[in-house]
Amino acid sequence: MKTKCFSFAVDVRGIGVRRLSREAWAAVVAAMILFCASPSVLGQEMPTVLPTNVRIVHFPSVTLAEQRTMLVMLPADYDSAVRRYPVLYLLHGYDADITDWARGTNLSDYATRHQLIIVTPDASHSWYVNSVSNPKAHYDDYIMKDVIAYVDKNFLTIPEPFARAIAGVSMGGFGAMFLGLEHRDQFAAIGSFSGSVGFGHITARPLPANATEEENRQVQDYVALMGAPGSKEQKARDVFELAQQVPVEEVPMLFLVCGGQDGGVDQTHAFLQVLAKRRIPYEYREISPRGHEWRIWNEEILVFLDKLEKLDGFEPLREQAAGRLNR
Amino acid sequence: MKTKCFSFAVDVRGIGVRRLSREAWAAVVAAMILFCASPSVLGQEMPTVLPTNVRIVHFPSVTLAEQRTMLVMLPADYDSAVRRYPVLYLLHGYDADITDWARGTNLSDYATRHQLIIVTPDASHSWYVNSVSNPKAHYDDYIMKDVIAYVDKNFLTIPEPFARAIAGVSMGGFGAMFLGLEHRDQFAAIGSFSGSVGFGHITARPLPANATEEENRQVQDYVALMGAPGSKEQKARDVFELAQQVPVEEVPMLFLVCGGQDGGVDQTHAFLQVLAKRRIPYEYREISPRGHEWRIWNEEILVFLDKLEKLDGFEPLREQAAGRLNR
Amino acid sequence: MKTKCFSFAVDVRGIGVRRLSREAWAAVVAAMILFCASPSVLGQEMPTVLPTNVRIVHFPSVTLAEQRTMLVMLPADYDSAVRRYPVLYLLHGYDADITDWARGTNLSDYATRHQLIIVTPDASHSWYVNSVSNPKAHYDDYIMKDVIAYVDKNFLTIPEPFARAIAGVSMGGFGAMFLGLEHRDQFAAIGSFSGSVGFGHITARPLPANATEEENRQVQDYVALMGAPGSKEQKARDVFELAQQVPVEEVPMLFLVCGGQDGGVDQTHAFLQVLAKRRIPYEYREISPRGHEWRIWNEEILVFLDKLEKLDGFEPLREQAAGRLNR
Amino acid sequence: MKTKCFSFAVDVRGIGVRRLSREAWAAVVAAMILFCASPSVLGQEMPTVLPTNVRIVHFPSVTLAEQRTMLVMLPADYDSAVRRYPVLYLLHGYDADITDWARGTNLSDYATRHQLIIVTPDASHSWYVNSVSNPKAHYDDYIMKDVIAYVDKNFLTIPEPFARAIAGVSMGGFGAMFLGLEHRDQFAAIGSFSGSVGFGHITARPLPANATEEENRQVQDYVALMGAPGSKEQKARDVFELAQQVPVEEVPMLFLVCGGQDGGVDQTHAFLQVLAKRRIPYEYREISPRGHEWRIWNEEILVFLDKLEKLDGFEPLREQAAGRLNR
Repeated sequence: MKTKCFSFAVDVRGIGVRRLSREAWAAVVAAMILFCASPSVLGQEMPTVLPTNVRIVHFPSVTLAEQRTMLVMLPADYDSAVRRYPVLYLLHGYDADITDWARGTNLSDYATRHQLIIVTPDASHSWYVNSVSNPKAHYDDYIMKDVIAYVDKNFLTIPEPFARAIAGVSMGGFGAMFLGLEHRDQFAAIGSFSGSVGFGHITARPLPANATEEENRQVQDYVALMGAPGSKEQKARDVFELAQQVPVEEVPMLFLVCGGQDGGVDQTHAFLQVLAKRRIPYEYREISPRGHEWRIWNEEILVFLDKLEKLDGFEPLREQAAGRLNR
Repeated sequence: MKTKCFSFAVDVRGIGVRRLSREAWAAVVAAMILFCASPSVLGQEMPTVLPTNVRIVHFPSVTLAEQRTMLVMLPADYDSAVRRYPVLYLLHGYDADITDWARGTNLSDYATRHQLIIVTPDASHSWYVNSVSNPKAHYDDYIMKDVIAYVDKNFLTIPEPFARAIAGVSMGGFGAMFLGLEHRDQFAAIGSFSGSVGFGHITARPLPANATEEENRQVQDYVALMGAPGSKEQKARDVFELAQQVPVEEVPMLFLVCGGQDGGVDQTHAFLQVLAKRRIPYEYREISPRGHEWRIWNEEILVFLDKLEKLDGFEPLREQAAGRLNR
Repeated sequence: MKTKCFSFAVDVRGIGVRRLSREAWAAVVAAMILFCASPSVLGQEMPTVLPTNVRIVHFPSVTLAEQRTMLVMLPADYDSAVRRYPVLYLLHGYDADITDWARGTNLSDYATRHQLIIVTPDASHSWYVNSVSNPKAHYDDYIMKDVIAYVDKNFLTIPEPFARAIAGVSMGGFGAMFLGLEHRDQFAAIGSFSGSVGFGHITARPLPANATEEENRQVQDYVALMGAPGSKEQKARDVFELAQQVPVEEVPMLFLVCGGQDGGVDQTHAFLQVLAKRRIPYEYREISPRGHEWRIWNEEILVFLDKLEKLDGFEPLREQAAGRLNR
Repeated sequence: MKTKCFSFAVDVRGIGVRRLSREAWAAVVAAMILFCASPSVLGQEMPTVLPTNVRIVHFPSVTLAEQRTMLVMLPADYDSAVRRYPVLYLLHGYDADITDWARGTNLSDYATRHQLIIVTPDASHSWYVNSVSNPKAHYDDYIMKDVIAYVDKNFLTIPEPFARAIAGVSMGGFGAMFLGLEHRDQFAAIGSFSGSVGFGHITARPLPANATEEENRQVQDYVALMGAPGSKEQKARDVFELAQQVPVEEVPMLFLVCGGQDGGVDQTHAFLQVLAKRRIPYEYREISPRGHEWRIWNEEILVFLDKLEKLDGFEPLREQAAGRLNR
């Protein structure tokens, strides 16, 4: 009998990144599947108190055929608003939940300060893609069809691509880059905060005979979700592939951040090489000493929000801008 | 039996624009009848929330003999106003609705900032003309008699031509140009945002024997609405004709915008030639890369509103203007 | 005996612009060769008084092997400057001179207000190209090698492409577009004010037997300067060709202006089509009623200078910007 | 006879960066030795005018036993100063000169705005190290002993490490990193702008028999300056080595910048890996599309100066800071 076995390595096809030892593969698998979790949220319970401008919203997803939740942060004066707001979809990490960003940063304040609506939809462990094997787990469609439509219908958004951005942390950074590049006509900006950008770019190598059950299970889960390494399905979920094919002038504003001690810094450098080779505009910031942690994400989300404000759809309204000069 | 068949081409009579191949005709028909819709709104549901200064108003139309709706954006301090406001009638596109402009831009804020009332009346697929064949579909009369009268009676407007402007997007850009030129004694300014200005200027050519039913239906619909190409009825609905006949000194301030990649850029250039030949004053802005999309309309409505403010009837009150500088 | 005769028509090769009647050709020739002059300067003598911040500079041109002149407008506080300035090369028209721009507009004030150095070099009737037949008339080299080097050595410039722009009127608008696209790594922005952009795009047709001597002379002068229509030499001096070949991401910021009644509005529309087809970013403004006259150039140079300020190298210094808010 | 020949490759020892083909080696050599020049300055003549707050200073260097020059930028109000200033030593690139930074950016203004003295000493092609073979070319000593001493004696500096920073571009970025890490007790901050950080980290491989004279000369020059690859001398001039050995808590604030399309981006990533592995604090910014050009250096020097201001020794004085807000 012949079982199909895979092990994985981050390998920028056709670009020639260095080979990884078997230990490195294991590290990669671990980094991807286990450590992609936003660390501080692991095992935390949902909070019972939230600032008054944060709402937990239950809504029906046609795609997933069930009730789901999203967290919505509104500007403080939203209820008396005589205007509409741009929206930032801010995706959570693996083993995290929708309160992730709202707790790891002072985001509910930033929503007010930067005059935008921030939405974190519940996405479980989905990696924000349409599952290859499970038609009930089409999370790409869920975000792009259900979540955005619900938000645009029920909140005071400017429901246009020029006033819509997507960003995320870790698994959510991958999700933002994937959804943002794939649906590039729907977003003005993409932010990846320590995003696991290499998740769709894993190559296959036979697992050794003595591979553990856990290792084998991880491989199977990966293939069920993303497709076998090298397959058409995987390539369609690989942001390296997307970055190599997307017309340069269509790419939304790109902002990437990674801690110098983050396990994902190598895959990030490899991804930057692909972007740079095609002269795709981006700004990348790497800070040390910072790991896979909320400290850097809280610092850098502010830099991202400042950059967002320079885009037409996110520019603060004139009077409020004038008000800030007087502070 | 011989049925009368038409196909259409944009042809600036007497100016000699280039001939279009049959494929081009089809493309023109498509562009005009199908794609004139404001693109991103297609299929969107009506929003369930609106800023507090936005009102959906139901009112009776004598002309159409039914209840219709309009969206009215009021300056934020309208309810405590001790003044009257100028009015901008801002027409929606094909397959769009009255919330179109209010969602695609931050117009509810601009109404406050520029101290005017902005009204978007419901006009279905009417092209804002009196239908040639359907006496129940006189949308020209509906706008000029019912809508304006209702607004001037029920809101704090300055009910005079010098304080009234009309503008629109796509089909609504045609509508604004048509109504504005025809009823030029009623408006101080006209704005066309990627307006389908060539819609009344289509010339007839026999459809080929193998024309599809859809093509034939479009021709019939067009003739039923606008009159047969070349007919007196069509000419009366053709802004090229209007522009050639209107006394130059009577033309309201004209502002036109088009994206460099908009399908309508050629008909816009042709229309500008007519205006220019007669020395009719206008300002035209063409931006690249921009298609038929809200991004350019949101950018350019702000330029139009800034220009409007230079007209006597739209000048912000001195006190309030001063107040804005101090904020 | 067979004499080589040409007449000319503006024809966007491969794009299919409409044919022009013989009368039109004549008009084109006239527009190009005769009316390209900036009208108000014709026959004027050099002024004897100039604002104190305007300098007439005599300098040696290695390329032209003679002494030439340039007019330099400096910010009012230049002599005590503790900074360096970006530079705008502002080219004059046909039959105009270096005081052209300085007299037709209030440019010496704008230099102060926008904190830049404005240089108008003397270029006679050169069309700013290297003459095909006269090695002593290499005006492309003269501008790019002699003029810029002299200015960067002798004035407080930031001698870098990100802080250098080129613009011009009429023949100078052609020159700015030509030099700016050809040497696109040397400029951050290009401005064409009623530029004769079609000058390098003229096609040849036999002149009729009864052509006047003057018509024949014009043809010969054109060929001597630009090369025979259709030749490799002409194509190398044709901004339509340049626009079709230049990598989109390398194109400097483009700003074009034309009066609705300017004889060059058709060639401008044709040129915009080429830019738009390639999605090259530009902003175009067309104003009516305005001909080939200083009124529009004075209005629009201010719009261009405002746009320039948004570029990194032209951004007003922080403290001065703050000062402006207090005015 | 057997001559000792080397070719070079950037190789992060012990980290396992990818192997380079022979062509790659040549490219590396070229990039390092030839293209490290700040590109746009090559061949420019020295300017004849300088802002009034810029001084060209001739001073005697004991180390080099000759008269040398430095460019000093002073705050605008320096001559009436009743205070002392922090100092930034800002090193020039290969084939550049002391006016390099002062011309490629608006640094003379920034000196005023950020209230510091900026010094660019003349360093020829020295790479800012003590030459291994030429005792008369000890540029490390020249900077650290002669230049700093002269500046602290002759200008109103705060002559203390907490108020002294070092930065540079290209070759000067290498120099700043090398001198800053080596003499880390003398500086509060180090800035590398597209620094050739791998210059001391080149490994040796035999040159092929058919190597050109030029290639052989480059190898000899390199060895004469830096020591043979792998030698103790070279290691002492290698910032990768320094970064691996320096006590983490002694490292000055580190700021690194590189364009995504800069030829040095790979060596920069490799250097970051070394820093990150040791948890040495740094901030790295990578921008696309930007090559080895003044545009990015002008943008990023402003970011560096903003960061500098957060250090105790560089904080603008409160009074003056307040004064700036009121202007």
